[in-house]
Amino acid sequence: MSNVTLQLAERVAFLRLEDVPPEVLGHARLCVLDALGAALRGGREPSARLVRALAEKEGGAPIATVWGHSLKTGSLQAALLNGVSAHALDFDDTHQAVPVHVSAAVLPAVFAAAEMTEGTLGDLLTGYAAGAETAIRAGLALGRSHVHRGWHPTGTVGTLGAAAGGARVLGLAPDRTAQAIGLAATQAAGFMKAVTGNMAKPLNAGKASMNGLLAAVLARDGFTGPADIASASSDFAAAFSEGFDPACLAFGGDHGWEILNIAVKLFACCSLAQAALEGGRAMRREHRLEDHLISEIELEANPRQMLIAGIPRPDNGSEGKFSLAYCAALGLRGGAGGPGDFEDESLRSPALAALMEKVSVRANPAISEVSARLRVTVKGGQTLDTFIAIARGNPGNPASPEEVKNKFRSLARPVLGDRAEQIISLVLEDASVQSHVKELAKTLSVPAPRN
Amino acid sequence: MSNVTLQLAERVAFLRLEDVPPEVLGHARLCVLDALGAALRGGREPSARLVRALAEKEGGAPIATVWGHSLKTGSLQAALLNGVSAHALDFDDTHQAVPVHVSAAVLPAVFAAAEMTEGTLGDLLTGYAAGAETAIRAGLALGRSHVHRGWHPTGTVGTLGAAAGGARVLGLAPDRTAQAIGLAATQAAGFMKAVTGNMAKPLNAGKASMNGLLAAVLARDGFTGPADIASASSDFAAAFSEGFDPACLAFGGDHGWEILNIAVKLFACCSLAQAALEGGRAMRREHRLEDHLISEIELEANPRQMLIAGIPRPDNGSEGKFSLAYCAALGLRGGAGGPGDFEDESLRSPALAALMEKVSVRANPAISEVSARLRVTVKGGQTLDTFIAIARGNPGNPASPEEVKNKFRSLARPVLGDRAEQIISLVLEDASVQSHVKELAKTLSVPAPRN
Repeated sequence: MSNVTLQLAERVAFLRLEDVPPEVLGHARLCVLDALGAALRGGREPSARLVRALAEKEGGAPIATVWGHSLKTGSLQAALLNGVSAHALDFDDTHQAVPVHVSAAVLPAVFAAAEMTEGTLGDLLTGYAAGAETAIRAGLALGRSHVHRGWHPTGTVGTLGAAAGGARVLGLAPDRTAQAIGLAATQAAGFMKAVTGNMAKPLNAGKASMNGLLAAVLARDGFTGPADIASASSDFAAAFSEGFDPACLAFGGDHGWEILNIAVKLFACCSLAQAALEGGRAMRREHRLEDHLISEIELEANPRQMLIAGIPRPDNGSEGKFSLAYCAALGLRGGAGGPGDFEDESLRSPALAALMEKVSVRANPAISEVSARLRVTVKGGQTLDTFIAIARGNPGNPASPEEVKNKFRSLARPVLGDRAEQIISLVLEDASVQSHVKELAKTLSVPAPRN
Repeated sequence: MSNVTLQLAERVAFLRLEDVPPEVLGHARLCVLDALGAALRGGREPSARLVRALAEKEGGAPIATVWGHSLKTGSLQAALLNGVSAHALDFDDTHQAVPVHVSAAVLPAVFAAAEMTEGTLGDLLTGYAAGAETAIRAGLALGRSHVHRGWHPTGTVGTLGAAAGGARVLGLAPDRTAQAIGLAATQAAGFMKAVTGNMAKPLNAGKASMNGLLAAVLARDGFTGPADIASASSDFAAAFSEGFDPACLAFGGDHGWEILNIAVKLFACCSLAQAALEGGRAMRREHRLEDHLISEIELEANPRQMLIAGIPRPDNGSEGKFSLAYCAALGLRGGAGGPGDFEDESLRSPALAALMEKVSVRANPAISEVSARLRVTVKGGQTLDTFIAIARGNPGNPASPEEVKNKFRSLARPVLGDRAEQIISLVLEDASVQSHVKELAKTLSVPAPRN
């Protein structure tokens, strides 16, 4: 085993909750709450429903909780299903530099492991921190070529993060943790381009969580794996990147915490379209604009925003999430950008379609990936200008706890009603580190209907 | 969807048992029997035991059979477990050109699908043929660069084969079959180098089967996936190879059947060390050689044989499988090359160790990967020569049905006793295509002990 692999495994295995600085822990709590909200609402999406129906057929011992449902099932099934649910709406968090949906991949594995071991919320948060850092750091080590080769980091490094987080919660020693990470690496999978417009994207997240947890429980039981995947000469490095940099894998202490760079989405669209929607909303608010007053809308965007979120006239809600034009128009009409705004019916609104027709998107490389400039020409010729430098929710302009709570409420209340508030308290309050995860799990379960 | 993807899916979806030529079907039957034998004995290996213990904890509806055990579980769990068992000893089949352990990846998925649909053995064999061809053809399409990048085809293209075979048994239409293959592609994983000397190698086979089956059942239920992975411009092609050749994907009719090029191992060691062991046995047989008469042994081998199976002085049984020197010495002592010859105790035999000390391996690029030349100098100076041109079991010198049956008996009898003969009849006899897979499944189950 190379030093670098063992060092990573030791960091994970020896991490204590007290080692996580308060601001990192605070952001981790918000990410956990946010992922639970995304999963509660996402569990009603077709992708999650299909995986749930399959889990019901396959059966399983009632070990682990399916969030927002009465179903209890095996831990691997639960990790798969909660992961698919968390990413089903594409409304869950993302790291800014590595396009990994951190919490959708890591949290379900860590949560199931904590149910298995009857752990506390402190255990869950420690595992989450270890897993999230591992996923992000592995993505940084693989570098840009990883994504350029067509890989979806949520599926690939997400699996490593789920394994590391699971291993931490299970209390594995460093050598077993290294094997868990290796067994995760040999299962890491998932493509990027091919997965928009179908259900493979949430599947990649769910599979990352399931496979990572499988790696951790197998390693716990004595199953052996490749223990040296973190060195630059490993199969993992060669197969997944050109120029793997193991130095990126260190975290904590002087190396800091990448958890702070996890962005929380405030709108249920692509992270690169958040600024366009925010800009539309700001423009309407500042200038009290009404549709009939608008003659033209020009949106300046970064070329990468246009590449990923540049669908000019989306045909369905899922495409609307990747359309700067739709998002800007939606914002200009005061849309809150919740999941309902990205359902097919919303896209068929004639007023919204008419406004979207007026939008033209122009490339401006000087604009950042999280920025947007909107220029609206009103009837009569006057031009109004709004610039969003950093869309809210991104590092540098992070969402406030109150905003995350409100987002959570809007997603969780339709599923769990008043229990949404209990979940907020359990996840965010300092004192809750002593409470058992089973208490949170119980609050997240919907009792089976009585016949 | 590109034509090539749809063409592959149509070939799979429309394949009928009558389309498979008799000699192809005959070889497929032998491969199926051989994989069942490897799995029955392999199920007792530590890797399989650990996965079985986990499956028991996780629970599952009693849908699918774990071969050689009383356990019935969910179909995904069963595919995982049977796949791990089938490859646990590394005594299962391999395609000659693509290093994919075809049946360990494909058969468990196809078998579980046939149990789910209450299919016949004819359905199972049709699914197996479609899946095996898909796995091998995908490996040929990816080409050498796939392996050079560090991928383990058993894990990667094995997943596609399991999905295609599963889709055929489930009776999916071409469009759903294409999505099943796409959902398999986004789960395809597994490294090559990193997985010798630990349990990740059989895990890759089991995961291929499980993931492929998951892809097929999800596609059946309406889960959507990337439906265009077989074109040269797909993420799949770019991420996994340099120079993907979709033309390789056609099978049947004028394109022939790669199933005929699946090699069945007669010895429980690396496929590249089969000739060395066979050569040792031939030398002993022809010259009635006894150990004390031998002063020197020279083995000529292909450089690739030396690279993969070149461990000069193995430390344990698992390393013995990848040691030309050990295999030659074993053969010279008349070893049958069964699993027992590759357990740690066998390697510690002083007589065998003494003989192995006399072996030197010399590179000869003119020798093929499935050949071996042995030159033994006997005391007094006489030199004896034996050349194995194509090790038995490989295409060009295929194992006879009788040899495969005998191998099966040696593996299956210790687990199932006389029922081994029933399995041979069910799998090999022409008439059995009408019999139900559940009959075979019942014969493969060990009744639970009565308390």
